[in-house]
Amino acid sequence: MEATFRALSKHGYVDLRLRDIGDEFEMTRQLIHYYYDGKHDLISAFLEYVIEQYEGSVAVDESDDLWAELDARIDQCLFGPEFASDFDHWDRMRVYHELFSQAQNDDQHREIFNRHYTKIRRSITRVIERGIEQGVFRDVDPENTAQFITDAIHAARGRRISLGHDEAPEQIRRALDEFVISSLAPPGEEPEFKSARSTARN
Amino acid sequence: MEATFRALSKHGYVDLRLRDIGDEFEMTRQLIHYYYDGKHDLISAFLEYVIEQYEGSVAVDESDDLWAELDARIDQCLFGPEFASDFDHWDRMRVYHELFSQAQNDDQHREIFNRHYTKIRRSITRVIERGIEQGVFRDVDPENTAQFITDAIHAARGRRISLGHDEAPEQIRRALDEFVISSLAPPGEEPEFKSARSTARN
Repeated sequence: MEATFRALSKHGYVDLRLRDIGDEFEMTRQLIHYYYDGKHDLISAFLEYVIEQYEGSVAVDESDDLWAELDARIDQCLFGPEFASDFDHWDRMRVYHELFSQAQNDDQHREIFNRHYTKIRRSITRVIERGIEQGVFRDVDPENTAQFITDAIHAARGRRISLGHDEAPEQIRRALDEFVISSLAPPGEEPEFKSARSTARN
Repeated sequence: MEATFRALSKHGYVDLRLRDIGDEFEMTRQLIHYYYDGKHDLISAFLEYVIEQYEGSVAVDESDDLWAELDARIDQCLFGPEFASDFDHWDRMRVYHELFSQAQNDDQHREIFNRHYTKIRRSITRVIERGIEQGVFRDVDPENTAQFITDAIHAARGRRISLGHDEAPEQIRRALDEFVISSLAPPGEEPEFKSARSTARN
């Protein structure tokens, strides 16, 4: 899987040949064919691997501070787990976004992405639901709000990767704070999202 | 260009060969090579063609009713110009989104997309700026707000295409109304976005 990752990073999905993967480690094309039913089967296994890594890396513990938990979940998905050196996160995301766009032609990949997308959205839905139950957030539609947040995160990452807008995740984080997160406060209450953090980030 | 469109729709960018384009009309591969310096050069020309078509089709006249103009601009980008039969819009979008994700490996395509993205974002920025000048909208950052709207539109289209979520554009339209558009009303004033239309759409 790591050899596949190196080969994909080097050649991209469009130009990838099984031979390129074999070149990255000590396995002949014949041996790859023994384990996988061609390029597509290998890439499907690889996609599951990348998504599993990603889901593990962005996992956030449930917290009593729902503002902080929502904040942390968004940041993990937007910026990735490694703040000091984000090389690995963005390398993973480049492959992820390339395969995402190809999923329109591939039912199996589409299925894998749908399962993953549901999982990420549900983790955000759950924080919002708990917040509403506890009266910390106002009564929004948890599912639609989580979907909007998830879409915004996806768009910011895609724009950074495809158009080279390095500032996109920061920009969308600020927009989410301004338009979505701050509006979650019940009427008459101040949102408790960290303006100190926002300021530090700008 | 239309032959390229048919070939791309049929085979996808990944598997596209010049021969497939030739198959779609009366031109040999030799003749394509006479006009274009290979697959990449032809696809770049094609991308410019698709984007030009798209920009032409979503053009909206400036209006004195800035709420309605903002509304129309968002709807055009989200749903495309043909509401009765949206076949052409989504076919175009499928190719557009596939090439967008490939732009990470292609400086020329990245440049074309950046120019286009700036143009679309600017058209939304301008409505917001005019609204603020006229006191119709509150004092938001026009550029960042337009960027957020543009990103949300892009994400909704991508999710519809890649994951098969046909409801994504409607969903994001409602979320934009709830979190972004309605918040543009100056303090104490009701937003003038069309709740009648929203209701009809649900």
